[in-house]
Amino acid sequence: MAAGGQNKLFDGLFADPEVATLFSAETMLAQFMAFECALTRAQGRWRGLQNADRAVAHMETVLLNPEVVAARVRRDGVPVPAFVAALREAMGSDADTVHQGATSQDVMDTSLALSLRGVSDILDRRLSAILAELAAIAEQHGAAPLMGRTRMQAALPMTIADRLASWTTPLERARARLPDLRAGVEHLQLGGPVGVRAPEDDAVAADMAEALGLQPPGPVWHAERDGVVAYGNWLALVTGSLGKMGQDIALMAQQGIDTVQLSGGGSSSAMPHKQNPIAAEILVTLSRFNAAQIGGLHHAMIHEQERSGAAWSLEWMILPQMCEATGAALGHAQELLESIEQLGSRTS
Amino acid sequence: MAAGGQNKLFDGLFADPEVATLFSAETMLAQFMAFECALTRAQGRWRGLQNADRAVAHMETVLLNPEVVAARVRRDGVPVPAFVAALREAMGSDADTVHQGATSQDVMDTSLALSLRGVSDILDRRLSAILAELAAIAEQHGAAPLMGRTRMQAALPMTIADRLASWTTPLERARARLPDLRAGVEHLQLGGPVGVRAPEDDAVAADMAEALGLQPPGPVWHAERDGVVAYGNWLALVTGSLGKMGQDIALMAQQGIDTVQLSGGGSSSAMPHKQNPIAAEILVTLSRFNAAQIGGLHHAMIHEQERSGAAWSLEWMILPQMCEATGAALGHAQELLESIEQLGSRTS
Amino acid sequence: MAAGGQNKLFDGLFADPEVATLFSAETMLAQFMAFECALTRAQGRWRGLQNADRAVAHMETVLLNPEVVAARVRRDGVPVPAFVAALREAMGSDADTVHQGATSQDVMDTSLALSLRGVSDILDRRLSAILAELAAIAEQHGAAPLMGRTRMQAALPMTIADRLASWTTPLERARARLPDLRAGVEHLQLGGPVGVRAPEDDAVAADMAEALGLQPPGPVWHAERDGVVAYGNWLALVTGSLGKMGQDIALMAQQGIDTVQLSGGGSSSAMPHKQNPIAAEILVTLSRFNAAQIGGLHHAMIHEQERSGAAWSLEWMILPQMCEATGAALGHAQELLESIEQLGSRTS
Amino acid sequence: MAAGGQNKLFDGLFADPEVATLFSAETMLAQFMAFECALTRAQGRWRGLQNADRAVAHMETVLLNPEVVAARVRRDGVPVPAFVAALREAMGSDADTVHQGATSQDVMDTSLALSLRGVSDILDRRLSAILAELAAIAEQHGAAPLMGRTRMQAALPMTIADRLASWTTPLERARARLPDLRAGVEHLQLGGPVGVRAPEDDAVAADMAEALGLQPPGPVWHAERDGVVAYGNWLALVTGSLGKMGQDIALMAQQGIDTVQLSGGGSSSAMPHKQNPIAAEILVTLSRFNAAQIGGLHHAMIHEQERSGAAWSLEWMILPQMCEATGAALGHAQELLESIEQLGSRTS
Repeated sequence: MAAGGQNKLFDGLFADPEVATLFSAETMLAQFMAFECALTRAQGRWRGLQNADRAVAHMETVLLNPEVVAARVRRDGVPVPAFVAALREAMGSDADTVHQGATSQDVMDTSLALSLRGVSDILDRRLSAILAELAAIAEQHGAAPLMGRTRMQAALPMTIADRLASWTTPLERARARLPDLRAGVEHLQLGGPVGVRAPEDDAVAADMAEALGLQPPGPVWHAERDGVVAYGNWLALVTGSLGKMGQDIALMAQQGIDTVQLSGGGSSSAMPHKQNPIAAEILVTLSRFNAAQIGGLHHAMIHEQERSGAAWSLEWMILPQMCEATGAALGHAQELLESIEQLGSRTS
Repeated sequence: MAAGGQNKLFDGLFADPEVATLFSAETMLAQFMAFECALTRAQGRWRGLQNADRAVAHMETVLLNPEVVAARVRRDGVPVPAFVAALREAMGSDADTVHQGATSQDVMDTSLALSLRGVSDILDRRLSAILAELAAIAEQHGAAPLMGRTRMQAALPMTIADRLASWTTPLERARARLPDLRAGVEHLQLGGPVGVRAPEDDAVAADMAEALGLQPPGPVWHAERDGVVAYGNWLALVTGSLGKMGQDIALMAQQGIDTVQLSGGGSSSAMPHKQNPIAAEILVTLSRFNAAQIGGLHHAMIHEQERSGAAWSLEWMILPQMCEATGAALGHAQELLESIEQLGSRTS
Repeated sequence: MAAGGQNKLFDGLFADPEVATLFSAETMLAQFMAFECALTRAQGRWRGLQNADRAVAHMETVLLNPEVVAARVRRDGVPVPAFVAALREAMGSDADTVHQGATSQDVMDTSLALSLRGVSDILDRRLSAILAELAAIAEQHGAAPLMGRTRMQAALPMTIADRLASWTTPLERARARLPDLRAGVEHLQLGGPVGVRAPEDDAVAADMAEALGLQPPGPVWHAERDGVVAYGNWLALVTGSLGKMGQDIALMAQQGIDTVQLSGGGSSSAMPHKQNPIAAEILVTLSRFNAAQIGGLHHAMIHEQERSGAAWSLEWMILPQMCEATGAALGHAQELLESIEQLGSRTS
Repeated sequence: MAAGGQNKLFDGLFADPEVATLFSAETMLAQFMAFECALTRAQGRWRGLQNADRAVAHMETVLLNPEVVAARVRRDGVPVPAFVAALREAMGSDADTVHQGATSQDVMDTSLALSLRGVSDILDRRLSAILAELAAIAEQHGAAPLMGRTRMQAALPMTIADRLASWTTPLERARARLPDLRAGVEHLQLGGPVGVRAPEDDAVAADMAEALGLQPPGPVWHAERDGVVAYGNWLALVTGSLGKMGQDIALMAQQGIDTVQLSGGGSSSAMPHKQNPIAAEILVTLSRFNAAQIGGLHHAMIHEQERSGAAWSLEWMILPQMCEATGAALGHAQELLESIEQLGSRTS
């Protein structure tokens, strides 16, 4: 299922291939495999699992078919059992070195942590580029006069720099907040069937976390989704701040207001003279999209007992879309800012 | 962008290929072409467009490449301008018979009307099958005793038939409501650049609507999305009713309650003895997903002026997903009901 | 708890006293009493309850203190048990004629049906007045020129009548839909402890429905909230349509656009020259408020088993607010339309 | 407008008088007055305002009637202009010492900062008490056996301590996060008409912030609501974590599962034998309520230009309710935990 019905015609508006790749079947299977390799290796080091290194060497050569894994998800509710079964089959006599002491959620959530690490890297880089672009715009256009408007009504004269501040400061704050949010999600998951990690597995978990480039593992978070939802909140804060910028630019581009000039606006099928501020509008769209999703994500906190299939699946449906929408919004924002040719006005 | 990151591994849970096809790029382009053919033909009949029949005959042979159309959407905000440009180019000397008096939104919204017609056919058929299955279950298990539970507490004995009624009646009502909802969306759109259809185009519109199998056209609905949002509400009502059923079955499947027995439950990667009621949980997931989306869809009503790119694009992001989630939920519900082996209990 | 923290200073913006009264403690207690009187009378007529008429005569004189009823709701989760206890105590030797065969939800939901009947009367009347006002405006200003705008950009000239149509038609459709929605909620509830009405109680239910001015009772709807949620959807459709109108008027009032002149706009504490289009903005606010609430209301469909305290209480929190927001929006819309002094422009 | 229609009968479920007081008309007016006193005093100290101390002494004796202030909000869209007018009138010849260089939003947002400071104090104190109660419960019942359940199915034996951890850890993290969130909202607002604070007013702002007990003022945040929305996210994270606990306890209380025993459960109007886990259910209700609201709050980020009446008013409608719902949830959680008599089971 997809925003816009997996319709390629909309990809230019809503998709972010770089982010999407982090949530693809192929990436997920590679993450699953990295988890199992790290687990088997750590089990060999800390829990005396026999033949662990040989098994890992073997495992690293296994290539699984996503179709085979996908085929059983409707029955199992999660792709891990089919993955583990296929991996064990491929491992032959080393089959029982695989997935020792882990459960599906350990694999899935660690995969999520790895994806979000990649997402954060991308978004942080783009935020940084946008902030640089905003600084350059302030440098070039900041002194231009602009009629300040409140409640959409002309209020008092100010400058472009004043309005730019309201676009820039929240994005600076968002960047500054990101490390804390990352710390809340870039955790290995290792809890076993009911999310209770034995003290003697702490060394296994620490070893795996280091191998996978994740934070030292804290408590099991099978049914504690606050870190994940807080991260989603951050995504929606980013798109909300970009949405405000997009809304402003769309308003500034109105004939009669004319306080921004953009290059390369969208054309109309009926009115060749029009120059539509497409990217500005899409920023509003994506911010409202994420605002809708974040409500759904909060409902996904209400896990029953040790694991709720219902709540957990809801997270799978929503969070990757929010990441991609945020990535797409940053892409549009960058292009929109680059397309600014003129800001401010001497007359209105 | 996709629920679950366009991740094929989740398709068995969230996807509905039959519904998804109705929102694919290929279907959309075919709908665009059907619109343009109907328009040119009707322009020939009612507005004296020269060579209309020849142009339509030509148009019906044109095959456009989705990639080419998709390539310009980021600039134009909507795939129609690129489509019309490509079509005109392919039409050579008949280029100016194409898209006369129409605007992008006419093409897009008519395409939506055609997709929703197909969606409604599918959902109606599935609702009918589910109601038949529920009737069969009532026939077979209805007399079995069941402890009625309120606030999750045992209250008074009743029968399986009593609980089945609370699953069945809302779905019957949903089916009964569907024709009204269909009437609100299966409309041709023909308004031109600013959504003002000249009286002399009413005959064109009527001709096109008949050719495309849509309702006689009413007022232009470019910026009036109440019919679309009401349809989305209906989708969420259907998944909400199925979610209640799913929640009940998941509760009934608890050991200690044991008032349903299901065949073929999901397996666990760690606990081979478990039989997880996956389909029941996914019904809850999909209902909460649609409940989140419907809020977003209501925001898409707030169009500025004659057309809001921001609001309209939000509808594109959300509505196809809601259709697919509803289709998927009906599929899971059917399988879940078919998997019921035993209902009710003499002991609890 | 209240929108704006039960802060009287905001009442002029968000409150609707006429609608709010229908959800007050006093109204609710009166509805409870009407339910119990109708029940006891019907039990006397159809189920042979002794002394029913005398008991009803007695009951009609009882005045209960809301504080006493409220005091126990934290323990019971619903005000009915305390109400019934207080009523029985007041009835002395006729105590056992009270609440025979009914359960808390029967009383609560019937009270809701009565409140929504009143809400619908109010909203319908206001919709009618607004449609009359819109017709008068079309008569007076319809021919004035207006630059049609799409994606906030000047597109093609049209008239005020064209834009008015996009405000008017959805409200006409909303009015036309209302009777169906009313039919889905103006139902007596009578199901007893687990929502199973014995056939011999159908006559009791029919008698009560007639006495209370509700529809002939259909199936018990304890855990079937589709009618209630569909009604909420309708509320959000109304505010969504008004929000689009408010957004348009706020945009038209911008200096530089200047296509509406309003009398009596809001003043600023800092800028006496400003005339803020407050009512137009509040229409947007209330539409986005209801758009947020409707998502929550859909979650309230997912009742566990025969009654979910969690889902049902969520409905209590949300639905009255949506009714009041809709009432308030209609009030603002009426005033906003009445404040229009000039529409359209010869220059932009 | 109110959750549950300002219906006192529901107060025991949804209201939190201690939090509500912080958003009352009386509190708001007192905060307005504190703002104006601090402003006039600081203007005297740093900007040479004549007679400032005398004016402040006078101002501190003024008592304004909330009704008078409320009466103009419908026209002005915000209570400040009427407040300032009334205050100036009361100040007689010192009238022009009032509100110098400030705008309505400065007053309103500073009032919000003061209210949220009080809310945070309350919530932090309650979180601390709940964590102490959870620690005591772990001490008393932690070693009791409990069947771990995933996807609502019995999985493997564990202990009560294991489940308690999933209730406790997210609340500990929420407490740990609170100082950062507070730092994002406990800011003086002082930006003047279009949110541009002159450098020479920085000393005024710093003086006022100290006087009011707020953080040293950073940038003007008229149209930058990320701090406010991040705070709302935190509220919904708290209720989400409590909702998971409530859901668990409601499931544990089911007959057939029987792994918690509560004292003082709610009674039924029809079934005296029932003990309903009301507080547990209400925790789920309040978490889903906040999950719905948070989506709306994110939409309130999209301010147009220097101030959006529409977006800002939406914040007023939603945020106080979220604060109160969170306060109420913490109250219910405390009572619920105190009512636990037995946890765990040897048999299921």
